[in-house]
Amino acid sequence: MRAVIATGDDRITIEDRPVPEPDPDEVRIAVRGAGLNRADLLQRAGLYPAPPGVPGDIPGLEFSGIVDAIGASVADLAPGDAVWGVVGGGAQAEYLVTRADQCAPVPDGVDLVAAGGVPEAFVTAHDAMFGQAELAPGERVLVHAAGSGVGTAAIQLARANDCEIVGTARTADKLERAGALGLDHAVVVDSPFDARTVARQITDAAGPIDVVLDLVGGEYLSTDTAVAAHRGRIVLIGTMAGAQATLSILSVMSKRLRIYGTVLRPRTLDEKAVATHAFTTDTAAWFADDTVRPVVERLVPLADASDAYTLLASDATFGKVILTP
Amino acid sequence: MRAVIATGDDRITIEDRPVPEPDPDEVRIAVRGAGLNRADLLQRAGLYPAPPGVPGDIPGLEFSGIVDAIGASVADLAPGDAVWGVVGGGAQAEYLVTRADQCAPVPDGVDLVAAGGVPEAFVTAHDAMFGQAELAPGERVLVHAAGSGVGTAAIQLARANDCEIVGTARTADKLERAGALGLDHAVVVDSPFDARTVARQITDAAGPIDVVLDLVGGEYLSTDTAVAAHRGRIVLIGTMAGAQATLSILSVMSKRLRIYGTVLRPRTLDEKAVATHAFTTDTAAWFADDTVRPVVERLVPLADASDAYTLLASDATFGKVILTP
Repeated sequence: MRAVIATGDDRITIEDRPVPEPDPDEVRIAVRGAGLNRADLLQRAGLYPAPPGVPGDIPGLEFSGIVDAIGASVADLAPGDAVWGVVGGGAQAEYLVTRADQCAPVPDGVDLVAAGGVPEAFVTAHDAMFGQAELAPGERVLVHAAGSGVGTAAIQLARANDCEIVGTARTADKLERAGALGLDHAVVVDSPFDARTVARQITDAAGPIDVVLDLVGGEYLSTDTAVAAHRGRIVLIGTMAGAQATLSILSVMSKRLRIYGTVLRPRTLDEKAVATHAFTTDTAAWFADDTVRPVVERLVPLADASDAYTLLASDATFGKVILTP
Repeated sequence: MRAVIATGDDRITIEDRPVPEPDPDEVRIAVRGAGLNRADLLQRAGLYPAPPGVPGDIPGLEFSGIVDAIGASVADLAPGDAVWGVVGGGAQAEYLVTRADQCAPVPDGVDLVAAGGVPEAFVTAHDAMFGQAELAPGERVLVHAAGSGVGTAAIQLARANDCEIVGTARTADKLERAGALGLDHAVVVDSPFDARTVARQITDAAGPIDVVLDLVGGEYLSTDTAVAAHRGRIVLIGTMAGAQATLSILSVMSKRLRIYGTVLRPRTLDEKAVATHAFTTDTAAWFADDTVRPVVERLVPLADASDAYTLLASDATFGKVILTP
């Protein structure tokens, strides 16, 4: 089979590899869509070692596809089933093996190729907002990097839960497109970033924030604590702007804030299975009636994977870049 | 009645004030013990304005005493009842009025004067460890400032819940006394504070920490994130070492840490009532059989309140300084 290979020296190649065989509790998937994620850029640079049990040099954290073969003890899936899921790596190939319980049924009405860009971003956003931050209907949520994969997923899920949504991005264009997904208040962040200015923009536009999804990190954290409402929750999901930041302990104490760190990839297979099935069960009806949908920047053939990585790294995408093996 | 007056210019005087009358839902308490807290030092300096509904210039956030008079609609308390509780201010006087539901019965076996140093520290520690951080039996908890009022309360409550306890303090003497309360591992913090060194001391002594009670703040936060176990919880309760700190977003994300800010004084009366009754109900049996007990540095007559404040400010206390009106 053809597979994307991350050489670890910032290059992407396509190579032939043996088609993998499933263990008794595993299934083999004929991959139809495999979304790219920022972690793939780290893996391309040799900075994101794959966890045990997945191919060390084939990237790909999410997939959609058709079950192609099943292990001897798999009872819940059959060849021909359309499934999606998150994996520790290996999805950017024609075939992928994964534990059967990592696969959830693709909801009716979702294009099977576009579905390959759904799991990582949507499960991350769903788990962060509802599993951790306990975002409730009527609350106000702030999404930094509103045009990213996780950002566009978060906006749609928050809207489906009747929340008020504030988004930030570096360009007005991304925020305009996010508006079509349900964003209520758009805040363009100028360069250089100034935490106080951005906090004032957000507060003026919307008021105190119940839940912040911070996909950016760095000094955005100072904005987060400044705009947070009493008993607000801040979920830290990214470090694009810095892996360290200044925290106002006084704000955290006096507003009784809660700060959650989250990351999907290093979780155990059991945890990933729970999060994937919780998301799929909660949202299948919304996908079916088009309340939420995959947001696709571009579908790219596997052979052009290197171009897809370049596109993702440009930071000019809105929604997902998806490889189509 | 005689009352402590915080003039707001760093002085404490004793003055005569009218005995307060209870509203229909309030009771009047003849105060027997009123513990000092660090917030009183801020109020002495004019930096901690009292919330609405409490005397603006009489400090005192906790009390024990005897119900002396009850409002017309009070059904659950009667004159002669021994009670304790937390209030927004006004406890450092011969009499105090407070809403009846703020009062919980002093458990059998607790000295009524020493009981006046229990509520603020114990409710804070109880709410932080169990109400927020969900500390479970068998988990490992780290308490900074182990000799403080909250620290000594936390150690006893954690021990009663079969937890393993690590404590830090500036002097070996305080840690030795904390050992008698149930501290398992003692770490003396040298000056100047170095977050990495202290983290290494803690990890060498005990291993990864499930729950951190950080009563100090500032760069202790870097130690907290370094020693925290996967899915650890950090509760921020004090800013003695600084109201701002550097946060490792990468550590918070990769370990999926949760950080909670907490403070008791500005909570609503309803919230304080819930926390006080939860603590009293959970711990009454432990007070009765001496599993936990008030830790008293010194009992000080109301007339010598100014000396009591000086003693608290010295930072050389172990447990509580309590005024005895």
